[in-house]
Amino acid sequence: MSKKEGIKIATIGGGSSYTPELMEGFIKRYEELPIREIWLVDIEAGKEKLEIVGAMAKRMWEASPYEVEVHLTLDREEALKDADFVTTQFRVGLLDARVKDERIPAYYGMIGQETNGAGGIFKAFRTIPVILDIVEDMKRLCPEAWLINFTNPAGMVTEAIVRYGKWEKVMGLCNVPVGAMMMEPKLLETTLDQLVYKFAGLNHFHWHRVADADGNDVTMKIIDKMYSEDAGLPANIFDIPFFKEQLEQMKAIPCGYHRYYYREQEMLAHALEEYETIGTRAQQVKETEAELFDLYKDVNLDHKPEQLAKRGGAHYSDAACETIASIYANKNTHIVVSTKNNGAVPDLPADCVVEVSAFVGAAGALPIAFGSLQAAERGWLQVMKNMELVTIEAAITGDYGLALQAFTINPLVTSGETAKQILDELLIAHKEFLPNFAETIYRLEAEGVTVKDPIVKEMLKN
Amino acid sequence: MSKKEGIKIATIGGGSSYTPELMEGFIKRYEELPIREIWLVDIEAGKEKLEIVGAMAKRMWEASPYEVEVHLTLDREEALKDADFVTTQFRVGLLDARVKDERIPAYYGMIGQETNGAGGIFKAFRTIPVILDIVEDMKRLCPEAWLINFTNPAGMVTEAIVRYGKWEKVMGLCNVPVGAMMMEPKLLETTLDQLVYKFAGLNHFHWHRVADADGNDVTMKIIDKMYSEDAGLPANIFDIPFFKEQLEQMKAIPCGYHRYYYREQEMLAHALEEYETIGTRAQQVKETEAELFDLYKDVNLDHKPEQLAKRGGAHYSDAACETIASIYANKNTHIVVSTKNNGAVPDLPADCVVEVSAFVGAAGALPIAFGSLQAAERGWLQVMKNMELVTIEAAITGDYGLALQAFTINPLVTSGETAKQILDELLIAHKEFLPNFAETIYRLEAEGVTVKDPIVKEMLKN
Amino acid sequence: MSKKEGIKIATIGGGSSYTPELMEGFIKRYEELPIREIWLVDIEAGKEKLEIVGAMAKRMWEASPYEVEVHLTLDREEALKDADFVTTQFRVGLLDARVKDERIPAYYGMIGQETNGAGGIFKAFRTIPVILDIVEDMKRLCPEAWLINFTNPAGMVTEAIVRYGKWEKVMGLCNVPVGAMMMEPKLLETTLDQLVYKFAGLNHFHWHRVADADGNDVTMKIIDKMYSEDAGLPANIFDIPFFKEQLEQMKAIPCGYHRYYYREQEMLAHALEEYETIGTRAQQVKETEAELFDLYKDVNLDHKPEQLAKRGGAHYSDAACETIASIYANKNTHIVVSTKNNGAVPDLPADCVVEVSAFVGAAGALPIAFGSLQAAERGWLQVMKNMELVTIEAAITGDYGLALQAFTINPLVTSGETAKQILDELLIAHKEFLPNFAETIYRLEAEGVTVKDPIVKEMLKN
Amino acid sequence: MSKKEGIKIATIGGGSSYTPELMEGFIKRYEELPIREIWLVDIEAGKEKLEIVGAMAKRMWEASPYEVEVHLTLDREEALKDADFVTTQFRVGLLDARVKDERIPAYYGMIGQETNGAGGIFKAFRTIPVILDIVEDMKRLCPEAWLINFTNPAGMVTEAIVRYGKWEKVMGLCNVPVGAMMMEPKLLETTLDQLVYKFAGLNHFHWHRVADADGNDVTMKIIDKMYSEDAGLPANIFDIPFFKEQLEQMKAIPCGYHRYYYREQEMLAHALEEYETIGTRAQQVKETEAELFDLYKDVNLDHKPEQLAKRGGAHYSDAACETIASIYANKNTHIVVSTKNNGAVPDLPADCVVEVSAFVGAAGALPIAFGSLQAAERGWLQVMKNMELVTIEAAITGDYGLALQAFTINPLVTSGETAKQILDELLIAHKEFLPNFAETIYRLEAEGVTVKDPIVKEMLKN
Repeated sequence: MSKKEGIKIATIGGGSSYTPELMEGFIKRYEELPIREIWLVDIEAGKEKLEIVGAMAKRMWEASPYEVEVHLTLDREEALKDADFVTTQFRVGLLDARVKDERIPAYYGMIGQETNGAGGIFKAFRTIPVILDIVEDMKRLCPEAWLINFTNPAGMVTEAIVRYGKWEKVMGLCNVPVGAMMMEPKLLETTLDQLVYKFAGLNHFHWHRVADADGNDVTMKIIDKMYSEDAGLPANIFDIPFFKEQLEQMKAIPCGYHRYYYREQEMLAHALEEYETIGTRAQQVKETEAELFDLYKDVNLDHKPEQLAKRGGAHYSDAACETIASIYANKNTHIVVSTKNNGAVPDLPADCVVEVSAFVGAAGALPIAFGSLQAAERGWLQVMKNMELVTIEAAITGDYGLALQAFTINPLVTSGETAKQILDELLIAHKEFLPNFAETIYRLEAEGVTVKDPIVKEMLKN
Repeated sequence: MSKKEGIKIATIGGGSSYTPELMEGFIKRYEELPIREIWLVDIEAGKEKLEIVGAMAKRMWEASPYEVEVHLTLDREEALKDADFVTTQFRVGLLDARVKDERIPAYYGMIGQETNGAGGIFKAFRTIPVILDIVEDMKRLCPEAWLINFTNPAGMVTEAIVRYGKWEKVMGLCNVPVGAMMMEPKLLETTLDQLVYKFAGLNHFHWHRVADADGNDVTMKIIDKMYSEDAGLPANIFDIPFFKEQLEQMKAIPCGYHRYYYREQEMLAHALEEYETIGTRAQQVKETEAELFDLYKDVNLDHKPEQLAKRGGAHYSDAACETIASIYANKNTHIVVSTKNNGAVPDLPADCVVEVSAFVGAAGALPIAFGSLQAAERGWLQVMKNMELVTIEAAITGDYGLALQAFTINPLVTSGETAKQILDELLIAHKEFLPNFAETIYRLEAEGVTVKDPIVKEMLKN
Repeated sequence: MSKKEGIKIATIGGGSSYTPELMEGFIKRYEELPIREIWLVDIEAGKEKLEIVGAMAKRMWEASPYEVEVHLTLDREEALKDADFVTTQFRVGLLDARVKDERIPAYYGMIGQETNGAGGIFKAFRTIPVILDIVEDMKRLCPEAWLINFTNPAGMVTEAIVRYGKWEKVMGLCNVPVGAMMMEPKLLETTLDQLVYKFAGLNHFHWHRVADADGNDVTMKIIDKMYSEDAGLPANIFDIPFFKEQLEQMKAIPCGYHRYYYREQEMLAHALEEYETIGTRAQQVKETEAELFDLYKDVNLDHKPEQLAKRGGAHYSDAACETIASIYANKNTHIVVSTKNNGAVPDLPADCVVEVSAFVGAAGALPIAFGSLQAAERGWLQVMKNMELVTIEAAITGDYGLALQAFTINPLVTSGETAKQILDELLIAHKEFLPNFAETIYRLEAEGVTVKDPIVKEMLKN
Repeated sequence: MSKKEGIKIATIGGGSSYTPELMEGFIKRYEELPIREIWLVDIEAGKEKLEIVGAMAKRMWEASPYEVEVHLTLDREEALKDADFVTTQFRVGLLDARVKDERIPAYYGMIGQETNGAGGIFKAFRTIPVILDIVEDMKRLCPEAWLINFTNPAGMVTEAIVRYGKWEKVMGLCNVPVGAMMMEPKLLETTLDQLVYKFAGLNHFHWHRVADADGNDVTMKIIDKMYSEDAGLPANIFDIPFFKEQLEQMKAIPCGYHRYYYREQEMLAHALEEYETIGTRAQQVKETEAELFDLYKDVNLDHKPEQLAKRGGAHYSDAACETIASIYANKNTHIVVSTKNNGAVPDLPADCVVEVSAFVGAAGALPIAFGSLQAAERGWLQVMKNMELVTIEAAITGDYGLALQAFTINPLVTSGETAKQILDELLIAHKEFLPNFAETIYRLEAEGVTVKDPIVKEMLKN
């Protein structure tokens, strides 16, 4: 986009606590990415947060040497109009919805997690109809724009955008690969530019292999180091090591979220312990967020505070800025993105969305062909991608049978009566944000289904 | 094989309690399948049972109008020499091994089942090396013979025979589809010949659809009937209904074993209850078997007793006889067999083994191309087939990491420390039958791993 | 369809010279296929032929012991209304169109053939829009009917019906496999029921393998016999033998039409010689047809005359009758049909149409999974299927570039200026029947493109 | 390979006229690619050329500021010992063999070309056994080395190395993509770094698409320019334009060699005209080469002469140097290479070799996933890849039926008696270099097959 005078960015969910990181990312890349205006857009319910974080964003730019307009708005159309890049970091139902996603399964002894298990399915149910609406708006208002999505579950959301939204100019981003590429070179006492990374899989469900500057595979070396030193997991994942014998066979490094699948027992025990004591992750995050917003209110604060790193999504926004800069300046940067497979992961159909090492430049993401995986990884990938496809279809059709299929096939849900109860309660609890399931929810209410977790019960009263 | 004067059958595991059903099947098909000699072969440990059931087999033929020699032997080579058909119904480690497969996982609150979960994986570990030995013998002694396998896990065993044994003249059989095709026509108040069945999937993990004589799909009709009438499950599966909403979306009928996956919670609860009370399935079967062998000792008994039906594997042997007769007489019979995919289930590789509707005749099984499945079924199939492949590779290599991978990806195993403990205890408990894992077992013993389940502990003392 | 009192058959292109064979086929199957009424429908241009052959058809039924109404009509809707089976044997543009398909390429030294090369592409261009119209009518008038197509090119026509017409109850038929299965058993001095046939490929482009009643592959035996005895090709294919060394490597028997691809030089030389002397095949057939219709006019003739066999399409109609009877009476007959692949030919996508051995019964065709082919056959199949897909898309869109792509990839067209000239002349020559290409034809006329072959030139004057 | 003190290069076919370009490429990259020694190895028959061009190579390095040893040897083992990079540019049978590949088909009116049609198949037949020998040597002598192959047919040679040689550290190179990337930016009045290229296909049979720095596809713009300006084809391809309507549908730019397939008629006419007049390409090249070697003899010449560009393979060697430098210095350069597919071209199996855009660095080639092609291109690709596979298998087995299959499926060979005659004569003519076909050649000689082309006949006398 070399010829454009100035760039317009629209950030949906602009009231997010991550916005300062996003601003910081843009500020430090201004020379290669000359932004003219940033539109932070949010919904009525997020107005207060938008105003706080929006004021903070303005202060950050004022403290920079650059002239960039920051607009705050509740009018999504105004924000999207002629945008060059749209970033999405919204959370349908805010953190309260995540509390429900976590607590309702946990009440019944199952994992409730933002992007995995029953909770991840419901986050998809709430988010997909909204993102498809945004895509329709974009077709009218900014048909040339790139959509950089970091709303979770980023893989399913990107898949929905490509498959049902029929919108190809999209990349989904995640901070997990960023974290690995920051931590692992240190383990090897080298720097990232001395290594060659290849990631392949799905969002929050990928593996990677690493070669050194001599072309030798150093994956096993990193694995060895991981067992002697700190593995540097994302803040939101409980740190339980993988079984080393398994990794030795795999010859690849799973992502942090694989713990839910490779150490299900311990991850569940940990989650249930938190549920019983300090509260689930979303409850903890709510506190962190409240603290962050208190900080943001400080009219003297004009840079991203240290505390944001604790939030769990560190580097997300920075990855988004780097992606945008790479597209704009045709930088051909290695970034791990959710994008159309095109064969890069040949064990999955060429037309589905995968998360994969890609070189990002003017033409978007050029995914690197990873080749076939071994049987175990292949099986995992295929079941997870199909679980995603069923979930997305359920989100769009509101079909209860499909929702049940998604629950049943999800490896973190134990199928049976309890799973069905969790499904029913989650439908009831998220009623406001699940218009496609209205008919089913109506039926469930008529049948007298009610939420049992006391905290969610209380939330629903209000 | 029309030109052959008489047929030689070799039955490995001839001392099985199923042998009378097999004899009955051959007797009633003698006109189309003119057998000259049947060799019942077993190992030293099964000698007593072989003699009892062998004598019974001889009485059955004597009571028939046909002249057929029944030979009892412990010499496998003698039995295989120039055989036309080899049937395999052996159980490595006998029912005691199955008791271990069931009780060790159950002790830790997981499913122990003959062909599913941790137990199924270990049955594969024990059986695959033995079947590959048999195949090597067949290459020398009866290279033109057909191998009709009904040793479980029949799918994995057949896959191992084709993939690693490089033996194509094999079919794996199962009584589950037979049961469905016996029961469902009754639900519709019609007969089997008025319906068109299409099965596809894996052994103990398939779905089917049914059309009537007008070509209309009546799958949903059968499903509806199933919820009002008796579903006629195999005797060894606890009867918990599928969620109807799920089946309505699936538009196919899962097999009985799908209960372990679609109603995991209830199946587990039932298994644990049995574990705590009347004993696991193998323990029950041991009693049934003892009763059967008592019956078989009766020198006046010369026909299959009613009580065999309770045993759980009813119709297995009859299916084997029908398969053999169909090959011999080029009958082109519809039989559901484990055979090389060849594309019939296009969601799995063409070179793997699937269980599928086939027309069986002189040229073996002609599998019917079923077409692609919907996302949920596709995901299930792919994860299960890859689990099978990992299991088989582990069985052959004795690689501990692969065994762990197989446990981890198995949907009925909750990954983590407990799963690893179960794996370790099962390795110890089956030491005698796992030569490929000798090194690992030696290490585990050195580390002091011991079996905790009191009954298995007791068994190991002897 | 066991419950129906009487069956209604609608035959589109009822005025075809093949109709008596069709009647004969129905008469001899009446006991299993109790037809009540047959509607022979044709267009205005075929009225005279319809009346002649229709009267003949009535005489045939009158001479039979059965009461069946034969209706003649130009009203397709009336004929389709509530039909149980629709058969299609029409020829858009009649034999004159085929003369053009053959002579225009031949004028330039290329192969003009009914279903292959440039001629086959144009037959598809003319036929596909018409068949899709018929399918739309069927959706309204007889949505439960089966469509049995033997209008050529039968493979592409069936593919268009499934892919673009979204109509699944269709089978395409061809007499080539029938011929092989009639001739080859004689070569082996056996009967068809003693052999197991497996065909796989595309219409007019398939291979087959054969096993005997002992399960032994006898394909090479048949090939050997073919080189010593008469190969019994369809009457319309010049008889030049395949290279035996090639077949020995292939271990399969190609169909007669493979001569165009495996012996292109000789087939072309033969075609050009006929072009220069006795006239192309269509010209010969026109004479045969005229003779046939003279025969049909004989009010004493009430059975299919011997002379029809010379026509080239012998057994086509009989195959259609057998297919219909097999569906109706759920006979599970082995018939080679064009049907949705569903994985039967795993080297082609599961959703495309292939010609393959299938068991035909109440639920339609159950295609037999053939497994992957060797490299050479696989390559041929893939290029031909993609050629078909491009041709069909061109037929529907009328896109000139796609038509050029179809010509270029067709192995029997030598790409270049001459091929383009042939394409342009064929567009001009078939103007009346190519509404989708109207714009291009208008341009070509404006550019002064004219047909050079003197006979076609003369035809176009009228 | 950052830690190595100095690099050893072994160049097989070191006596090639291209060696000076290779030296020039290494000299200009010395700073990033610190070579210590270069071993030029050739066979006895090439000794004279090796000495001439070797002396020239030494002068080139002497004229440079760098100290690099150039060794000339006929001992391949000595050259390979501990090499870091092996480049292959040999020609089995020298240019005389190519004369035969071209003239024997042309005598019969078919295309004889270095890498396409009958000639390309025979170049593969001669080269593949030799390259597999080299690979066996490398396994012993330099198991860590990279093999950079630019011996034609580079795609088939690379496929043979990966598939049968089981050697993964190999890339095949070609100058055709280099040419396109040099010429097309000029057409757009921009520079290469302002464009994003994506190539996919097979060696000498690929297509590419181009985006500009704004991410807009400019492929059609380039196509438009090509029709108004000079298309800049490789010197060895006759310049006949593609049909524009075809490219407009294709939305991709074919490579120069596609002319043989998209304009077969004109390419053949041109080739036959040269055959009749100035001699085939190889005959012309022989003259050019003689001139080059005369130049190389000049003891004052110490840089690559201008005349080399006429030779046809310009930029080949430079591409090889850039590839080696990119591996060594982990440069992550976009280079179009023949490499294992890994899914990059999902219409072909993941385990075959394709020619595709890749980023080349320390870990080798990271191929970019291109996605599925449209039907026509897909069909072409699949038939060509399978033709390659048949050819390679024939080369290794020496099976005459396979050779006939390769000829038959090759789109530039008209199947039939003449094709078989060409096959037979080529076998006779290349007898010396086809040990795998010895038996067949012996049979053909016994049958009295002789070469008819007078010039080749004369060559065979000597």
